[in-house]
Amino acid sequence: MSIAKKIAESSCRSSWIREMFEEGAKLSQIHGCDNVFDFSIGNPNLEPPEEFQRILEELVADRTPGRHGYMSNAGYPETRVAVAAYLSEDQGVDLTGSHVVMTVGAGGALNVILKAVLDPGDEVIVPVPYFVEYASYIDNHGGSLRPVGCTADFDLDLEAIEAAIGPQTKAVLINSPHNPTGRVYTAEMLGALGDLLRRKSEEQGCIIYLISDEPYRRIVYDGLKVPAVMAAYENSLIASSYSKELSLSGERIGYAAANPAIPHINAMMDALIMTNRILGFVNAPALMQRAIARLQGVSVDISPYQRNRDVLYQALTEAGFEVYKPQGAFYMFPKAPIADDVAFCREAQQHLVLVVPGSGFGAPGYFRMAYCVAPQVVDGAIPALKQMGAKYFKK
Amino acid sequence: MSIAKKIAESSCRSSWIREMFEEGAKLSQIHGCDNVFDFSIGNPNLEPPEEFQRILEELVADRTPGRHGYMSNAGYPETRVAVAAYLSEDQGVDLTGSHVVMTVGAGGALNVILKAVLDPGDEVIVPVPYFVEYASYIDNHGGSLRPVGCTADFDLDLEAIEAAIGPQTKAVLINSPHNPTGRVYTAEMLGALGDLLRRKSEEQGCIIYLISDEPYRRIVYDGLKVPAVMAAYENSLIASSYSKELSLSGERIGYAAANPAIPHINAMMDALIMTNRILGFVNAPALMQRAIARLQGVSVDISPYQRNRDVLYQALTEAGFEVYKPQGAFYMFPKAPIADDVAFCREAQQHLVLVVPGSGFGAPGYFRMAYCVAPQVVDGAIPALKQMGAKYFKK
Repeated sequence: MSIAKKIAESSCRSSWIREMFEEGAKLSQIHGCDNVFDFSIGNPNLEPPEEFQRILEELVADRTPGRHGYMSNAGYPETRVAVAAYLSEDQGVDLTGSHVVMTVGAGGALNVILKAVLDPGDEVIVPVPYFVEYASYIDNHGGSLRPVGCTADFDLDLEAIEAAIGPQTKAVLINSPHNPTGRVYTAEMLGALGDLLRRKSEEQGCIIYLISDEPYRRIVYDGLKVPAVMAAYENSLIASSYSKELSLSGERIGYAAANPAIPHINAMMDALIMTNRILGFVNAPALMQRAIARLQGVSVDISPYQRNRDVLYQALTEAGFEVYKPQGAFYMFPKAPIADDVAFCREAQQHLVLVVPGSGFGAPGYFRMAYCVAPQVVDGAIPALKQMGAKYFKK
Repeated sequence: MSIAKKIAESSCRSSWIREMFEEGAKLSQIHGCDNVFDFSIGNPNLEPPEEFQRILEELVADRTPGRHGYMSNAGYPETRVAVAAYLSEDQGVDLTGSHVVMTVGAGGALNVILKAVLDPGDEVIVPVPYFVEYASYIDNHGGSLRPVGCTADFDLDLEAIEAAIGPQTKAVLINSPHNPTGRVYTAEMLGALGDLLRRKSEEQGCIIYLISDEPYRRIVYDGLKVPAVMAAYENSLIASSYSKELSLSGERIGYAAANPAIPHINAMMDALIMTNRILGFVNAPALMQRAIARLQGVSVDISPYQRNRDVLYQALTEAGFEVYKPQGAFYMFPKAPIADDVAFCREAQQHLVLVVPGSGFGAPGYFRMAYCVAPQVVDGAIPALKQMGAKYFKK
């Protein structure tokens, strides 16, 4: 078979998330949408804000010539400036438009950043559990993912990170609010991580970057504000998107931003702009770039997610499941009642509840529930969760 | 400097096309837009057809929930079916929606295809001259570009291709209508290439794919129809986009299509869908997918391009330049009057005429003019072309 060996092999393991997503579509056809409780994928069920709709209509009515054509590979200057202004306030660090490259979502941004920094054989340290695609993204550019453990409540384990750092370490990749656990790292924790990376960079005589994947930055509960990674460490890069905060995941609009304090920052920006081009992205979609330029700081109303979190957390804990209470994002990562998380997910599927095995996130023994769903999906799943809980956790 | 070595090195050579494009913006600021004649980049100057505008307004007014969210990584089923129906008629081969993956432009499609087929060390044969990004696209996935010469009038040189084929050959990558020459390969030539690749695949016991990059397919002159690559060879894949035919280059909407006759076609499609995801594209932009589903077979009115081709071709030949008359696309590739094509392009720049050195396409001694520009740009450049012609070609 003339498929690349690596691709043919990983086709077999594929993505659990996507597999469950496709499974959900099939089950819905058989049992009806209302009877299948699909927590498999982080596809926001909230509609984009009304303001997005209004701006999109305005933009589409605008007949300025060339508005659907190429722009600079970095994106429209006015879009980059708008993102930089927002980030400057959010991060407490002065960015200009020149520190931002518009990308095809956060997935595009991560690939653009990794291609710009990784030499063959470089390692990227990633705390477990982690979003499954990170391994592919790092491998795409000749690097390898070095998993490190976290604390029992999914916080960063700085000792484990320090122990994993060596001459082959090019970056640490974090994600906060975190997929799949919902953990948000504190300012103190980020500061301590910054101190560690600064010290190790000096010891080793070369920079260890901190890459922060932040598409859930504005999806946090109980009034929390996500601490700024750029304030904590100078050699930091942010990958983000409007997929979650504006519910635009299918439109592929995001950005990569680099800390102006990075030495050789101009070379870094040139590299990011070039990798955006040579990876075949070329530029972020034009119309969406013009839309988000006018939507900085706007988000969907996340109160339905907060409601889902509260109801689901209560139901799971009452049913006996051990689960970390998410501070952000829209995922919950309960411990499976049996060691074989894949078997447990199959069992849940029998109840028409679709969840994803923790194995897909490098953490067997857990399962993920994406609760960016209609409230009736959460409510509808509760009897099955109780039933499974009663089976495994009966006193 | 902690940038990937490969990226730091190629930052220096960068892209001539983009360099000239940025140079043009600077010169326009100094001398005024009307006095700079910019032929540097293939950014269509024609507006998208009125039908696109109408459909886009309709789509934006539609409030169906989830219309900006994720869909299957392969794209919307109805979009894939629409593209397949168009391709089936165009290629004379029966495709279904399952043979099409929607991508982030043709650049995305090429990367998705190359990632799906290349193992480390594999070679992709590419006729010279070629679009500069091909080398990066192939290198992204561990392959290497094997350049082969063409005939004097930029036709395929089958002997050169045959001589270059070896056990390391995974694919031949062609582009018709051709950038930068405007050449369109005939059905006979494609048939002969198919015969050659069929014979060599059998000899070597493994498939040599024919990858056809076809974003200019509907931009052809004098009533020409571009022959079908899928009819000519069973192991063929098409990468294309709506960047040129609908003037949507900034919106990043395209597709990869595979010949249903490929053995293990299902594995191939799984691989393409997976590489679309793991390269960070995830899916083609949602709104544009829904637009192009309703615009199959629609193109911009190319008569302004034909007019530019005719005027520019006449002016260049009258000025003494040796140049192939393009049958399609919107590029002309004249021979430079001096061996040093970079020096010649700098000289043209002194006349405020921006053209790109052939060196950027693997063909020193030539230069490229992208004539997807306003007619006054062509007309305005003629005096300078005549002046340079008179200097170099005086009798």
